[in-house]
Amino acid sequence: MSERHNTEMPFASPESTHWLDSIRWNDAGLVPAVAQDSESGQILMMAWMNRESLQETAATRTAVYFSRSRQRLWRKGESSGHTQRVISIRLDCDEDVILLSVEQLGGIACHTGRAHCFYRTLTGGVWETTDAVLRDPAEIYAEASDPEPVSSHTVMGQRVSGHSVMDQSTNKGGQGVEGKANE
Amino acid sequence: MSERHNTEMPFASPESTHWLDSIRWNDAGLVPAVAQDSESGQILMMAWMNRESLQETAATRTAVYFSRSRQRLWRKGESSGHTQRVISIRLDCDEDVILLSVEQLGGIACHTGRAHCFYRTLTGGVWETTDAVLRDPAEIYAEASDPEPVSSHTVMGQRVSGHSVMDQSTNKGGQGVEGKANE
Repeated sequence: MSERHNTEMPFASPESTHWLDSIRWNDAGLVPAVAQDSESGQILMMAWMNRESLQETAATRTAVYFSRSRQRLWRKGESSGHTQRVISIRLDCDEDVILLSVEQLGGIACHTGRAHCFYRTLTGGVWETTDAVLRDPAEIYAEASDPEPVSSHTVMGQRVSGHSVMDQSTNKGGQGVEGKANE
Repeated sequence: MSERHNTEMPFASPESTHWLDSIRWNDAGLVPAVAQDSESGQILMMAWMNRESLQETAATRTAVYFSRSRQRLWRKGESSGHTQRVISIRLDCDEDVILLSVEQLGGIACHTGRAHCFYRTLTGGVWETTDAVLRDPAEIYAEASDPEPVSSHTVMGQRVSGHSVMDQSTNKGGQGVEGKANE
């Protein structure tokens, strides 16, 4: 799955915007972006991008998403340190989905401390957790240079407290709100 | 990337619905579903699923999406013959994105005749086509057992005519309409 390009040059200069006009942004000005590990091929996560986040991603070769819950740019890794170095940016046939090939720093993309976000597998009508936590999120975010406000919050049916990551765990979802689930 | 499970059993019986309640459907009752080739790890496409399509997918182990443009179930391969045998169904940490591991029949997931839909790569501020057409879509859909109404339509800047696939090529997109881009 390895895909190598020149990793020094931006994919598009900050002044270049024509390529952004090809994209069919949704009513909220967003497109889904799938991040795939460039080495293993594992799907790490799916998040959303607005025009500004994609432009910054292309210019810096570092993944920047848009947090729907916080309505601001989400520089992946800004809290966790788990940034994503972008190897390639692809667009689908309908021009409304982005695919990033990335190098995942720290080998952990998910805010739960797992390698990727898709850690539950449907088995006999049950969502079974099939991927291990590689590192305690409390540890990951304790080292954060830019910690978020601390709170107590229920995540995945577990009550946890004492760190910000928990504020962002289940807010990406269905009803038009979203979050930086992986931060 | 190979991921093998028992390929005979459904992931959930048709009577089982509890697992569907865990999913955070959007306001339109949909979730994005990413399809990944179980052998190569290649990301084939992203489409949408409603509750019914996901339930059928789990019961039949064959990918069924929901066409936003046509507002009906889209049984992937119904026109092209390029069905997807589902190897596993995963859910992300926020319970609002589905990941399918699939075997792509015919080795072509995209309605353009390419292996996958992400055939354009951002290079120097331009979306460069980097993947070849493996088979002429006109051929693929000429063999369809269930052809759609024929029309002439502009696809990807090319005027083509004579087959239905063209009706569905660019309608998945941003403004809340969508289609079975791959059919």
